[in-house]
Amino acid sequence: MLVESTRNDAVKRAKALANKKGRTEQGLHFIEGEKLVREAIVSGAEFVEAFVEEGHDLMEAVLIGSGARVYTAKRHVIESMTNTESPQWVCATVKTPPTDVPEVYPSGLIIALDKVQEPGNLGTIIRSADAMGAKGVLLGEGCADPYAPKPVRASMGSIYHLPIWDGDLKKELSKLVSDGYTPLCAHLKGSETLPDVGSNCVLVIGNESRGVSEEIADMCKLYRLPMYGFAESLNASVAASIIMYELAKQMHS
Amino acid sequence: MLVESTRNDAVKRAKALANKKGRTEQGLHFIEGEKLVREAIVSGAEFVEAFVEEGHDLMEAVLIGSGARVYTAKRHVIESMTNTESPQWVCATVKTPPTDVPEVYPSGLIIALDKVQEPGNLGTIIRSADAMGAKGVLLGEGCADPYAPKPVRASMGSIYHLPIWDGDLKKELSKLVSDGYTPLCAHLKGSETLPDVGSNCVLVIGNESRGVSEEIADMCKLYRLPMYGFAESLNASVAASIIMYELAKQMHS
Repeated sequence: MLVESTRNDAVKRAKALANKKGRTEQGLHFIEGEKLVREAIVSGAEFVEAFVEEGHDLMEAVLIGSGARVYTAKRHVIESMTNTESPQWVCATVKTPPTDVPEVYPSGLIIALDKVQEPGNLGTIIRSADAMGAKGVLLGEGCADPYAPKPVRASMGSIYHLPIWDGDLKKELSKLVSDGYTPLCAHLKGSETLPDVGSNCVLVIGNESRGVSEEIADMCKLYRLPMYGFAESLNASVAASIIMYELAKQMHS
Repeated sequence: MLVESTRNDAVKRAKALANKKGRTEQGLHFIEGEKLVREAIVSGAEFVEAFVEEGHDLMEAVLIGSGARVYTAKRHVIESMTNTESPQWVCATVKTPPTDVPEVYPSGLIIALDKVQEPGNLGTIIRSADAMGAKGVLLGEGCADPYAPKPVRASMGSIYHLPIWDGDLKKELSKLVSDGYTPLCAHLKGSETLPDVGSNCVLVIGNESRGVSEEIADMCKLYRLPMYGFAESLNASVAASIIMYELAKQMHS
């Protein structure tokens, strides 16, 4: 079926996923671009509907194999749905995985986010968490939605590689601590020596402007990244990624 | 003088700085927001014109002290100039410093960029370079313009803390090497052990998709950040920042 109009019902459903309300109602999110779509396919994401520009028959077959209802669409229809500057020829709607916190957290490194609000930072942190072998990302109250278009793109497919949980940060952090995880957070008042975190650790990353909230910081060991120049601070996702890297090196040594 | 119209000449001049052509013709760039304006003031940036919302008299006085011709402006006029979602009450035009490469590079860590094209990445790399005590950032051909609004914002004022040079990357890299700088680049084929770079080092960061170009990589020691998870790669500014951090630690130890 060739979609020639941006007023097609499937197109409207996909566009509604640009907003949190639409994502919640449909239980879906939207992805765009060949790289991200391929990453979602190989990661076993559950596709619902997909839109492929005329002439990309091979991708159509792969998407049908992944469970998608595939529409061939005119270029202008796909452009009306996508959010990036460079034109894409494929986009899709995908089921959002459940985000309930687990009864038992996986062993290793857990990343917990305290009101991380910038969508690009959120996606970049998820990508770095994945690269550093973290076992999951716990989103406390007041974080951006990881399934919005921008964090999905910034994560470069990492949202499909590790679980993302929504939880009460204070409660879950207490649980992790009582289960033996070393709670660590980046904090201006922290020590510049990375503590020995053992084999289970939860790293808390705070809000871009205000850092980790006081009641959460009070539950953690505090660590301050050494800096050598004039900038007062690093970008939040950069600071988070450097600490994850240091933790990964320590935990794998 | 109260500016009530977005068609005011000074407003038009400031808006023209959104484009490379306007920035080149006027030799200026545009900054917005209290934090960045304050950072530029304390860093000794040369202000030309500034726009302050009615009621912020104190900032007006400080800007006049920094050499700016200050206009009091209606909120909607400032909103028409600024690019961020959260409304700003101050913005300004600032002289762009010269970007000629130096005869003699400063000792320490130099960051060189090979076709880094995403404006946010560029600004974030400059911010991290500053935080890690780098002595300057050399932009080869094909990089984004660091004085465009987005990199300026992402740099959080770091563009005023260290020199930014425009140069022929291959030629400058040869010069740095013959001056005794260790040339290092992040490369998928590199060793996972950071080499000893001595006290002078030039770190080359490559394009977001294609990495460092082959003829440049051939001139460098190659280093590959160890990774521990499923993501194939890190965000370019994150990877660059982690390596800068490792280099800063080594060079300060």
